Amino acid sequence: MSSIESPSRKSLMLFSGRAYPELAEEIADSLGVTVTPTASYAFANGELYARSEESARGADVFVIQSHTAPINDWLMEQLILVDALKRASAKRITVVSPFYPYARQDKKSRGREPISARLVADMYKTAGADRIISVDLHTSQIQGFFDGPVDHLFATPILTDYILSKYSGRDITVVSPDSGRVRLSERWSEYLGGTPLAFIHKTRDVTQPNQSVANRVVGDVKGRLCILIDDMIDTGGTICKAADALVEAGAEEVIIAATHGILSDPAAERLAEAPVSEVILTNTLPIAPEKMLDKITVLSIAPLIARAIKEIFEDGSVTSLFDGDA
Amino acid sequence: MSSIESPSRKSLMLFSGRAYPELAEEIADSLGVTVTPTASYAFANGELYARSEESARGADVFVIQSHTAPINDWLMEQLILVDALKRASAKRITVVSPFYPYARQDKKSRGREPISARLVADMYKTAGADRIISVDLHTSQIQGFFDGPVDHLFATPILTDYILSKYSGRDITVVSPDSGRVRLSERWSEYLGGTPLAFIHKTRDVTQPNQSVANRVVGDVKGRLCILIDDMIDTGGTICKAADALVEAGAEEVIIAATHGILSDPAAERLAEAPVSEVILTNTLPIAPEKMLDKITVLSIAPLIARAIKEIFEDGSVTSLFDGDA
Amino acid sequence: MSSIESPSRKSLMLFSGRAYPELAEEIADSLGVTVTPTASYAFANGELYARSEESARGADVFVIQSHTAPINDWLMEQLILVDALKRASAKRITVVSPFYPYARQDKKSRGREPISARLVADMYKTAGADRIISVDLHTSQIQGFFDGPVDHLFATPILTDYILSKYSGRDITVVSPDSGRVRLSERWSEYLGGTPLAFIHKTRDVTQPNQSVANRVVGDVKGRLCILIDDMIDTGGTICKAADALVEAGAEEVIIAATHGILSDPAAERLAEAPVSEVILTNTLPIAPEKMLDKITVLSIAPLIARAIKEIFEDGSVTSLFDGDA
Amino acid sequence: MSSIESPSRKSLMLFSGRAYPELAEEIADSLGVTVTPTASYAFANGELYARSEESARGADVFVIQSHTAPINDWLMEQLILVDALKRASAKRITVVSPFYPYARQDKKSRGREPISARLVADMYKTAGADRIISVDLHTSQIQGFFDGPVDHLFATPILTDYILSKYSGRDITVVSPDSGRVRLSERWSEYLGGTPLAFIHKTRDVTQPNQSVANRVVGDVKGRLCILIDDMIDTGGTICKAADALVEAGAEEVIIAATHGILSDPAAERLAEAPVSEVILTNTLPIAPEKMLDKITVLSIAPLIARAIKEIFEDGSVTSLFDGDA
Amino acid sequence: MSSIESPSRKSLMLFSGRAYPELAEEIADSLGVTVTPTASYAFANGELYARSEESARGADVFVIQSHTAPINDWLMEQLILVDALKRASAKRITVVSPFYPYARQDKKSRGREPISARLVADMYKTAGADRIISVDLHTSQIQGFFDGPVDHLFATPILTDYILSKYSGRDITVVSPDSGRVRLSERWSEYLGGTPLAFIHKTRDVTQPNQSVANRVVGDVKGRLCILIDDMIDTGGTICKAADALVEAGAEEVIIAATHGILSDPAAERLAEAPVSEVILTNTLPIAPEKMLDKITVLSIAPLIARAIKEIFEDGSVTSLFDGDA
Amino acid sequence: MSSIESPSRKSLMLFSGRAYPELAEEIADSLGVTVTPTASYAFANGELYARSEESARGADVFVIQSHTAPINDWLMEQLILVDALKRASAKRITVVSPFYPYARQDKKSRGREPISARLVADMYKTAGADRIISVDLHTSQIQGFFDGPVDHLFATPILTDYILSKYSGRDITVVSPDSGRVRLSERWSEYLGGTPLAFIHKTRDVTQPNQSVANRVVGDVKGRLCILIDDMIDTGGTICKAADALVEAGAEEVIIAATHGILSDPAAERLAEAPVSEVILTNTLPIAPEKMLDKITVLSIAPLIARAIKEIFEDGSVTSLFDGDA
Repeated sequence: MSSIESPSRKSLMLFSGRAYPELAEEIADSLGVTVTPTASYAFANGELYARSEESARGADVFVIQSHTAPINDWLMEQLILVDALKRASAKRITVVSPFYPYARQDKKSRGREPISARLVADMYKTAGADRIISVDLHTSQIQGFFDGPVDHLFATPILTDYILSKYSGRDITVVSPDSGRVRLSERWSEYLGGTPLAFIHKTRDVTQPNQSVANRVVGDVKGRLCILIDDMIDTGGTICKAADALVEAGAEEVIIAATHGILSDPAAERLAEAPVSEVILTNTLPIAPEKMLDKITVLSIAPLIARAIKEIFEDGSVTSLFDGDA
Repeated sequence: MSSIESPSRKSLMLFSGRAYPELAEEIADSLGVTVTPTASYAFANGELYARSEESARGADVFVIQSHTAPINDWLMEQLILVDALKRASAKRITVVSPFYPYARQDKKSRGREPISARLVADMYKTAGADRIISVDLHTSQIQGFFDGPVDHLFATPILTDYILSKYSGRDITVVSPDSGRVRLSERWSEYLGGTPLAFIHKTRDVTQPNQSVANRVVGDVKGRLCILIDDMIDTGGTICKAADALVEAGAEEVIIAATHGILSDPAAERLAEAPVSEVILTNTLPIAPEKMLDKITVLSIAPLIARAIKEIFEDGSVTSLFDGDA
Repeated sequence: MSSIESPSRKSLMLFSGRAYPELAEEIADSLGVTVTPTASYAFANGELYARSEESARGADVFVIQSHTAPINDWLMEQLILVDALKRASAKRITVVSPFYPYARQDKKSRGREPISARLVADMYKTAGADRIISVDLHTSQIQGFFDGPVDHLFATPILTDYILSKYSGRDITVVSPDSGRVRLSERWSEYLGGTPLAFIHKTRDVTQPNQSVANRVVGDVKGRLCILIDDMIDTGGTICKAADALVEAGAEEVIIAATHGILSDPAAERLAEAPVSEVILTNTLPIAPEKMLDKITVLSIAPLIARAIKEIFEDGSVTSLFDGDA
Repeated sequence: MSSIESPSRKSLMLFSGRAYPELAEEIADSLGVTVTPTASYAFANGELYARSEESARGADVFVIQSHTAPINDWLMEQLILVDALKRASAKRITVVSPFYPYARQDKKSRGREPISARLVADMYKTAGADRIISVDLHTSQIQGFFDGPVDHLFATPILTDYILSKYSGRDITVVSPDSGRVRLSERWSEYLGGTPLAFIHKTRDVTQPNQSVANRVVGDVKGRLCILIDDMIDTGGTICKAADALVEAGAEEVIIAATHGILSDPAAERLAEAPVSEVILTNTLPIAPEKMLDKITVLSIAPLIARAIKEIFEDGSVTSLFDGDA
Repeated sequence: MSSIESPSRKSLMLFSGRAYPELAEEIADSLGVTVTPTASYAFANGELYARSEESARGADVFVIQSHTAPINDWLMEQLILVDALKRASAKRITVVSPFYPYARQDKKSRGREPISARLVADMYKTAGADRIISVDLHTSQIQGFFDGPVDHLFATPILTDYILSKYSGRDITVVSPDSGRVRLSERWSEYLGGTPLAFIHKTRDVTQPNQSVANRVVGDVKGRLCILIDDMIDTGGTICKAADALVEAGAEEVIIAATHGILSDPAAERLAEAPVSEVILTNTLPIAPEKMLDKITVLSIAPLIARAIKEIFEDGSVTSLFDGDA
Repeated sequence: MSSIESPSRKSLMLFSGRAYPELAEEIADSLGVTVTPTASYAFANGELYARSEESARGADVFVIQSHTAPINDWLMEQLILVDALKRASAKRITVVSPFYPYARQDKKSRGREPISARLVADMYKTAGADRIISVDLHTSQIQGFFDGPVDHLFATPILTDYILSKYSGRDITVVSPDSGRVRLSERWSEYLGGTPLAFIHKTRDVTQPNQSVANRVVGDVKGRLCILIDDMIDTGGTICKAADALVEAGAEEVIIAATHGILSDPAAERLAEAPVSEVILTNTLPIAPEKMLDKITVLSIAPLIARAIKEIFEDGSVTSLFDGDA
């Protein structure tokens, strides 16, 4: 007999970097698997090592990492784990990066700048990734940086569902903290049933010499519940100043909603002091306990990611995940 | 003697597709060269052919094409010419596409969509292009689609200089025709010395049943000269409706400014009928004589492109071209 | 449990560009599937768009396009559809191009020419194609242009079977219309049971000044049924002149047989006027109704392509398709 | 119905070059398959040809070649067979090269040297190989030359098991024939239960003028059974001189063990004359009958390779093959 | 000062494999350089080694090899030398292969065949070649197998010039030895001023049972000087039988002309016995002294190759080399 | 005129990451240039940014980084700077990494391990590096991980020259701290004029139960000056234990010499307490002031790197740098 034949089987395995294992565990629970254990550690000089404790031969593997600080370590750990799994004969490798690292450096704003978001996509490819899952990319064009399928999940419905249930009946205005997020705020407005929009226009204040900058509110916010939205909150500078401007412009109440809570210092202090009644985030990134203000609400992204992984593994039997499309 | 030595020389050659040879000629004039003649034609079944009439061995070649209709023919012609020059041993090949084809399909808005702008970048690479020059990309992220240097030129200063000289002293508001171009309008505002901003928010009109859509002006336009800006005007539907909304909202005068005048039907009729006093465009794309309304002003992009080519050829001796950076 | 396991399944899906949907339908019928619907259209400026209406995740997809005029549009549409399916996580993508576009530009006949047939192969690869099915390539070497499997189907048996049944008992000579197709005519001769060969030699007519060209018949055609064969008929110039030369040389009857009926103008007029009693073609390309002369016979290629697709999908359980080899 | 669905099956097929078909047969026997027949031969000018006699569509194929002299012919034959199987739509291609060709040229020892071992890895990739199986690579770093999984099998346990059973109770010293194999000898020592080590240090003999070289034994060998180990024996010069040095230094008995028996001339004569009682090899390479000395013992590598192939095909159900890891 | 500047220089270096150093020397003489010495040799087991004796950093290097038997060794030697020069920082590497190896395996004639000519092109690329120079490729499409410039030189004018000067005034017919070279014979006919053509059609002899094959001459050869042409003569079987057929058909005299004299056994014997008065070849391949029949004339290809190298190095200042095109 | 011609010039520019700018300055001083200033910084969440302050268009750039802790940050910074320079049209990019990061993970010691040193080489390539300069790679095979030229510099002569001048006349034994560095110690021995060798063999101590490990000295060290050598000192555990073993075995004096002083904690304490009189290092990595023991001597690597850069820029006019070879 000149060939051996047998039916094909496929298996799904979940791996996690060490940045935020709780998220991976939560995703695993949703899927009904356990995270495959790895031997992962740093050598004395900071070089990282990662190795699966179980065979991944022929498996459909998902490598989850949450890109919080120290971000370059976690990126490198994920790349090394992908390399190890490629060489260990995994059949297909999907990188799961809920917060895409370096997403903000997605173009040359000036000559001689890097396009680090493309570099990251190429490094994933080079290490051996076949596909990427990410949530609320800073710009959708980053999908085009990767030479392969990117499943771009949207957290907005998770956030807007919460807002609709908690703040129903209020006169809401969706506010973009600067001119670059107005399109995003329009999408929010649709989810919230068609609310008015506003945005903050940074402008030179002609009443003051020496080029000081004023935040001018464009749009109608007086007496309304303003929802300041963004894809991420890093140091919180822009969005907290936007909250000040809204209050000054007569807003009745201001809340903040964003997918990615980076909360680099001094974000927590700024949010604490800002005239904001609630800050709504997801857990794409871990939030340190000392930054966990009472007014912060964290919604879980894990069920969404788990459903995407399941769909990818099962070749699209769940077709309603991304806005009815898969 | 085991080697022959000689000093290196470099030579610049300009090639043009057949879409809009006048632009290439104008660029060539600025540079003080002539466009190298090519044998370019279509076979009976539409297959295209292109071949340089002169040796391009070792040359630094620039292949200009203007992506007007029939756009797929002109793209294919440019690719074939690049392939021919690669095989003819050109040293370096720069694609000059003032209007980047398929720029608007730069992301998956829904599942299963193509990212054609990335596909175009990859096809340029595959054919043999080493670098790209383009003007006012629909989104700056397209730079990251190409695996190599992209010189992204800005036409905005050409347009704003014209406006500043013609409309100085007026109370100007820069208006984005939809929520996605507010950032762009902010950049215009800066060039114009810090004018106020406005944008048009498409919203469901709650006073009308059946989901009809209303264009709501967000920002202050009453009694002002409104400059509706965009990167391109295709059929002109959105921008002409925006002009209507501005007039309704009390604008004193409305003008339109955009880099790329695609002017697909029925753009000319719409612009003719719209309450707009002037439409300012550049010649990145040819404008058919029958669409050349009296109120259209066309500014030449050729000097900007010529300066970029010169700088690239001479390795950056002109450093002030892109905002002081090169 | 650290992995989820399930049996693998595979699914075949058929997609079609808009060039000649009837052929795709016929193939689909042979296979017992339907063509998956796509949203495909052109934007106002000619840019194309294509998106599958159903999930293709994990599927073995076949993307059929017939490269008739406007050939660059149909090529681009096919590439865009391949890109979309790649990003939509199709498992394997096979391009089905019965008439391979730009097949005639398969070498540099002079310096500085493109090799467009290689460029097309590279563009298919770049867009995401894993393999190609084509029929009667202009030269077999084109298989080597693609970095992957090419299933090269032969339509000759379809044509010769028809001829054998209709013209049995006749004294047949297979004639190549020029010196480059003599090998092909030898293969035809074998299928037809070992007929004599002839070819037309274009030569400077020494009896006429000024380099006029004469078509000289090399081989024995007097009183015989001559079958002029070629892989394609484009404008029909060469083959119709060959028919004239054959009649002049004493041929009793002339028929023409070719796989690809491009029939660019003025092919229909030339064929109508030529001393040819029958023109036998396949439907790799659509034939416009106004060109459908009475003497044209069209044989269907669909069953052959359907069998090839089935074999590819089922991993070679049909082994007798290509001359006993698969 | 817009798709055809069926369960996936997988099939394993074994191919062999003509260098050493007996090894492939032995592996096939272990697996319970037959080697798929190929049409393989050389043309008159030495160009090689290889073609599978059976369909390999969709199969998981393993292409075995043993890189004995004429080594470049056998390498080229293997590459051509891989190319043919890639174009014949094999699903996955694993190159099985028990003795990795050009393994010794794995670095630049001087400027301007090639790194032929990397070149070989790249040629395997270029031809279409997805993965490599090899035995006792000259240096483990060669795994990193290939951009994909490399299953690196160790023959040492086969050799040490034999030694342990035959020479148990003896006072063994493991000896490296030069300074570069001391690490390897340490690994042997572990397998043999922790024996002492020694190595031969080539040094200028200061008692002799004109830079003659002396082999100095470093370590304790007096009155002991010395096992000279290496990964391969080519002409046998170094290892036979090492045996002389050991005897001179008082060794009681010397045996040689190595994985790869290249045995280029005059290895057989040297081994015959050397003060060595047994030479233990595996059959990664064929040993010509005229070189088959009585003191040579050949252990079969086939069961180890067969187990690796089975494991790869079955996605790791055998997990204990490589030191408990797979 | 933040940069060091200096004028660029370029240098040409010539390297040769060991297959046919006389040809490289002759080319070097034409160019006025010497061949750079290399350390090239085979290890005991047949593995090859090649290293430049001089620095090639930044040089424009040409690596000449003549692919005679043992062809796989010479191909591998050339690849290794290219790899070494790439790693030694040569600026540009041109492979000079006057007889392209494996050119005849340029397509799949049957299912599951390799396309070895493409594999060779890819191996050149992988090793580091930027471009190829070759003479009279078996099929011109091989140019398209390489992803870069291929300078395809034609030896036909060298051969036809010789024939025109020696056989002027004779009634010449150019004869193709089979149906696949008729196009080539047409090109010869043009160079020779428009001679008639003929070709040999292999056909089943209906007068003989059991499928014996007859060589039938198609075209007019009676009483004429027949020039049998081909790109190469390997074992000489086909062409010598063609000579027999021509004589039988009444040819007055038969001569043979071909670019590549492979002359594998028993070519010399066959040519000696064939009814052929002269055999004209070039020295793209060495001809062993024992095969150097009196009736063989060898014309040198070296001046043509030297001119091509010079042109490539000097970026096309010689433009008339390839039919007026470069 | 259809081309502009001008002589080519080339310019060298030096860039430095922020890990150890003093080394880059020292190299720059040797070359007589200044390091080009960059805007390099970390964002609040740790994402890095790097941009050249001057145009690098057409320049031959060298990007120096010293891979000390935090090593992943410095690697990422270097990659981002390379990406930025690639997109800024640098002509050639050479990565200068005196201590190659992740060099120790150069193979799979067990199944499922990564080969991080290959991953790093691929990431350099992906970012845009054309070539690499490194010093004393952990294993020479790492050269083969990069698909391009690697200039591998040797620091050993710098270290041995110092030892020869300081310790001349002493009875020296070169000692490898484990079995894997014996080859390296042999090379040292040659540089030092042919000294004896020894190495430390880790072995289970049979006099002690429970598998405790003893360090056994293999070779003659009694009453001699022992030079313990290695390519790097990380935490210093192995080498300090080796020093203990040497003293125990009767060594008169022990000194340590290594190229790369990583000195991760607790290396400084260990070295302080070890029976070692001098520790000789180079400055490929910075040594923190608090670790700068009196017995540590640091020799500068900058002149060696500067000479290599000069040679690369000038295409090898300095040919004596690497052992007479370049």
